Amino acid sequence: MDRRHTDREYEGELESLRERVLLMGAHVEEVLALSMRAYVDRNVLLARGTIELDSNIDQLELEIDEAAIQILARRQPVASDLRFITTTLKLVTDLERIGDLGVNICERVAELGTDRSVNPHDPIPRIADVAQAMVHDALDAFVAGDAVKANQVIERDKTVDAYYAQLYPELLPRMMSNPSVVFESTRLLSIGKSLERLADHATNIAEMVVFMVKGQDVRHSGPASHQ
Amino acid sequence: MDRRHTDREYEGELESLRERVLLMGAHVEEVLALSMRAYVDRNVLLARGTIELDSNIDQLELEIDEAAIQILARRQPVASDLRFITTTLKLVTDLERIGDLGVNICERVAELGTDRSVNPHDPIPRIADVAQAMVHDALDAFVAGDAVKANQVIERDKTVDAYYAQLYPELLPRMMSNPSVVFESTRLLSIGKSLERLADHATNIAEMVVFMVKGQDVRHSGPASHQ
Repeated sequence: MDRRHTDREYEGELESLRERVLLMGAHVEEVLALSMRAYVDRNVLLARGTIELDSNIDQLELEIDEAAIQILARRQPVASDLRFITTTLKLVTDLERIGDLGVNICERVAELGTDRSVNPHDPIPRIADVAQAMVHDALDAFVAGDAVKANQVIERDKTVDAYYAQLYPELLPRMMSNPSVVFESTRLLSIGKSLERLADHATNIAEMVVFMVKGQDVRHSGPASHQ
Repeated sequence: MDRRHTDREYEGELESLRERVLLMGAHVEEVLALSMRAYVDRNVLLARGTIELDSNIDQLELEIDEAAIQILARRQPVASDLRFITTTLKLVTDLERIGDLGVNICERVAELGTDRSVNPHDPIPRIADVAQAMVHDALDAFVAGDAVKANQVIERDKTVDAYYAQLYPELLPRMMSNPSVVFESTRLLSIGKSLERLADHATNIAEMVVFMVKGQDVRHSGPASHQ
């Protein structure tokens, strides 16, 4: 077989894998954007419709896993290609979970209905803006192999944690003084928690990217670590 | 090099990888067991001490990833060995997250202090029993390559979801009628949610095991699927 031909095929397989991760990422970002639009507009129909989109994401994870395993089996990659493929295998697990958290948000929005009593200054969209940008930039960093961008994502997780930490102390006294807002408040807490967790998953992805690029592991160490 | 020697070394590397996954699993199970003991006894000191154990789990994930990548690079495994290694890479991500959820439970227990006003018949330990057994059995199924056992784990996730679904309707009216139980109730909801999510992660692991054993993918399909 022509060696250059094989090399070109191999490059094509890696490129196709990368493109499928990007496609999966685009679906996940869409679910998040729609879930927040449904939340802000209290649009139950949009929330329910968005839940349906999750099956595409699940299917893409399976396809990407299978494609990655096939490349490992047939091409026996080493060095940076091997790191790219093993990172892909682990990364799509977090990406799929981010999609699930978008679905969880939609479920809470559907439960909320058109209720909107609690918040003169709703902190949820502010948390969502940072969390969504983290997901986007973590995927950008993965595709570009950009450790600097990945480290910026890791850094921003503190902002999300700080915003989320304000949510509970704000809602608790209202729940205690006004039983009619207890239901809505618990849904808001749940949405806030989902956003905080999806920022954690974006952080995981960013840590994997730094590991992939630098060959050193920033996960679970130093000030950027998180639970 | 003596071929048999190399083969024996290779077998040893795979066995060592499997053992490290089991060790990581044992640490995770210990964190869960201690977190539930801390919860039942409202033991804040035990809760805080248990949080410290999580760093072992994080460290093991890094070591396992690195060992798996080294085997892929040096041995270029195929067929069932390749599936075993790629499953390991993905599985430890879920296992690490289960440890994090145990930590989250400990954090909520520490916040609860010695408060115990809400529950004459506390449903949390019942959810925890099933969830912990699922984690244990998912790891057993992985080590034994036992798809039947893995499918039983997947099946049990419905029980956890059903138990968890009862928690909120039970706590909501109490919160609305009695402001003094709002704080404790929100902590119980959070602990229940952590248990429900860790059962999801056990289900993910079990689905990966079925995939590994049968070479077919049960994840995200059919009645056993979950969000």
